[in-house]
Amino acid sequence: MPEIHVDLAATPYSVTVERGILDSVGQRIKALGLSGKVAVISDETVAGFYADPALSSLESAGYQASLFTVPAGEASKSLSQVGELCSQMIQAGLDRSSFVVALGGGVVGDLAGFVASAYYRGIPFVQIPTTIVAQVDSAVGGKTGVNAPEGKNLIGAFHQPKAVFTDPETLGTLEDREFREGFAEVIKHAAIRDAAMLPRIHAAAAQDRATLGELIADNVAIKARIVEEDERETSGTRALLNFGHTIGHGIEASLPYGELLHGEAISLGIRAALWLSVTKCGLPQSQADQVLQALEAFKLPLVLPEKVDPATVLAKTATDKKFMGGTIKFVLLRSLGDAFVSSEITRQDLSEAIDQLQK
Amino acid sequence: MPEIHVDLAATPYSVTVERGILDSVGQRIKALGLSGKVAVISDETVAGFYADPALSSLESAGYQASLFTVPAGEASKSLSQVGELCSQMIQAGLDRSSFVVALGGGVVGDLAGFVASAYYRGIPFVQIPTTIVAQVDSAVGGKTGVNAPEGKNLIGAFHQPKAVFTDPETLGTLEDREFREGFAEVIKHAAIRDAAMLPRIHAAAAQDRATLGELIADNVAIKARIVEEDERETSGTRALLNFGHTIGHGIEASLPYGELLHGEAISLGIRAALWLSVTKCGLPQSQADQVLQALEAFKLPLVLPEKVDPATVLAKTATDKKFMGGTIKFVLLRSLGDAFVSSEITRQDLSEAIDQLQK
Repeated sequence: MPEIHVDLAATPYSVTVERGILDSVGQRIKALGLSGKVAVISDETVAGFYADPALSSLESAGYQASLFTVPAGEASKSLSQVGELCSQMIQAGLDRSSFVVALGGGVVGDLAGFVASAYYRGIPFVQIPTTIVAQVDSAVGGKTGVNAPEGKNLIGAFHQPKAVFTDPETLGTLEDREFREGFAEVIKHAAIRDAAMLPRIHAAAAQDRATLGELIADNVAIKARIVEEDERETSGTRALLNFGHTIGHGIEASLPYGELLHGEAISLGIRAALWLSVTKCGLPQSQADQVLQALEAFKLPLVLPEKVDPATVLAKTATDKKFMGGTIKFVLLRSLGDAFVSSEITRQDLSEAIDQLQK
Repeated sequence: MPEIHVDLAATPYSVTVERGILDSVGQRIKALGLSGKVAVISDETVAGFYADPALSSLESAGYQASLFTVPAGEASKSLSQVGELCSQMIQAGLDRSSFVVALGGGVVGDLAGFVASAYYRGIPFVQIPTTIVAQVDSAVGGKTGVNAPEGKNLIGAFHQPKAVFTDPETLGTLEDREFREGFAEVIKHAAIRDAAMLPRIHAAAAQDRATLGELIADNVAIKARIVEEDERETSGTRALLNFGHTIGHGIEASLPYGELLHGEAISLGIRAALWLSVTKCGLPQSQADQVLQALEAFKLPLVLPEKVDPATVLAKTATDKKFMGGTIKFVLLRSLGDAFVSSEITRQDLSEAIDQLQK
């Protein structure tokens, strides 16, 4: 059973990746020393599959657990949903001695983590991520929050979980498209930190999902090391995780939420960032191609949908970022595994990179 | 100029109490090293008096400052107001490199502090408290937050300010009733930590408000020492600040917000807690009387308004608290200056203490 330690000075914790771990989360949470009533926060889809085993494991361990669900999808990541959940939890008698279990994908983890950070000014929480994106990325590192009408993740908190329990078996119920989109973040990890992982990523496309534990654990380790270096995203290291995300977010914001999944938009953003890396800082085209082939192996989009106007993408990308002296901060690769934050990308560069995505 | 250091390991800061300091906050904030755009958050009443000097001081120091106001009153301490302010700040171009200045009383400080804690997952903030309650209590210690429909302060964060600038001159524009209610917290400080302060408190009732700096500073020091001992209210020390608040909150919740001001409800709560202290742990009646006389000097209520039903107060007090084994945690005094958290107060005790308030 791979266990990855996230070694933060004030709030260290472990990520355990293990098939079937969902059935023993109650005992494992007990072993952490958490007491009090439990709020299990999930979405309606995930709860349909996994709320029962999670609740019964918690109850077997002696916990009084209540389930709170939100509609599946990005729209639930809102401040009004935070208020709704807090009210339900107060009415159910949860207090400052209670804790939260986030059971679901990235939306649930970010939302439930922020609820835990704010409820009675902060109660503990545990992550049980059930999607690729959440397992390899969002459940680790303590970034929690919701979207403002003006943009994603603009309201939130750094609130580290007490533990992360990752069960690769839960990937079995993911729809094919959701499974595939998660690999955009896995491929991003390979691109910025571990090129040697690319062949294993290719192999994963044809693999039984429940056997992906090792690959997930290795991705958690990449994320954990970066978070340890720069927990609050102040030194620049954590910013490397934004590889592919600057233009990716611009593309996401150019379409109604959900039309392109997050990972699909990031796939396009990665292609644009690779093009800029080749053009601006000498990334060998052969290395860029390796990354593109990995994205293709998961049928992730590499060409901008025709209905998306490149000018809109540019505008959405640019509002999200500060141009200082005509340039913005943008993550580039000198070679696979060697990412850095460039301060030399201009609006014109962005425009050209987005245009390249049309073909 | 009295300056009180709040010596927290991770987030130390100073509280400066000085007449006229409002006119130099820009320079003083500059000296802290804060940069970026500034959101000055205030309420409509306070902004009418003090937004201009605050903004012009900030602008003279080279800051680009924008004013955001909320309606005066407790109703503004809501999650929807947090969302509203965040949206306005995003639209005004404030980002993760910006900071917040909270200009106002307890509502503004709690609300603006929580906005600062959550905006882009946390930006710095500075408190400029303009009421007695805020100056001696709520602006110091990092408790921020809003009310849930189900209860006060249930959603929030611990987020310490970078500095507190307290100008006793701003007390001049407080309405008489608001000025007087603030002394409930001052008298509470004397009761739990510094009985020798009582004669000075009496004198303050007849004093020019702008000359209250020393008394305010001494109260800040009491609060600061308690916060240093127990920043997150985990050891029990910070709980001593709840003296008079358990039943006081029950009374507040038995009436529509604002009918009794917070300090007025706390005055009643203090009387009930004194009665329990005399009855249960031997507080000399003569010492209780000294505290009651101080409350009277500020015309604070000592008798429950006739329209308030004691049974309702008991119910509201009890829902707020956990009875464990038939008793709750309740702050009592063995003697003036010697407060402790008792675990021996029963529902019957509470009921009798509330009944005593009827005469």
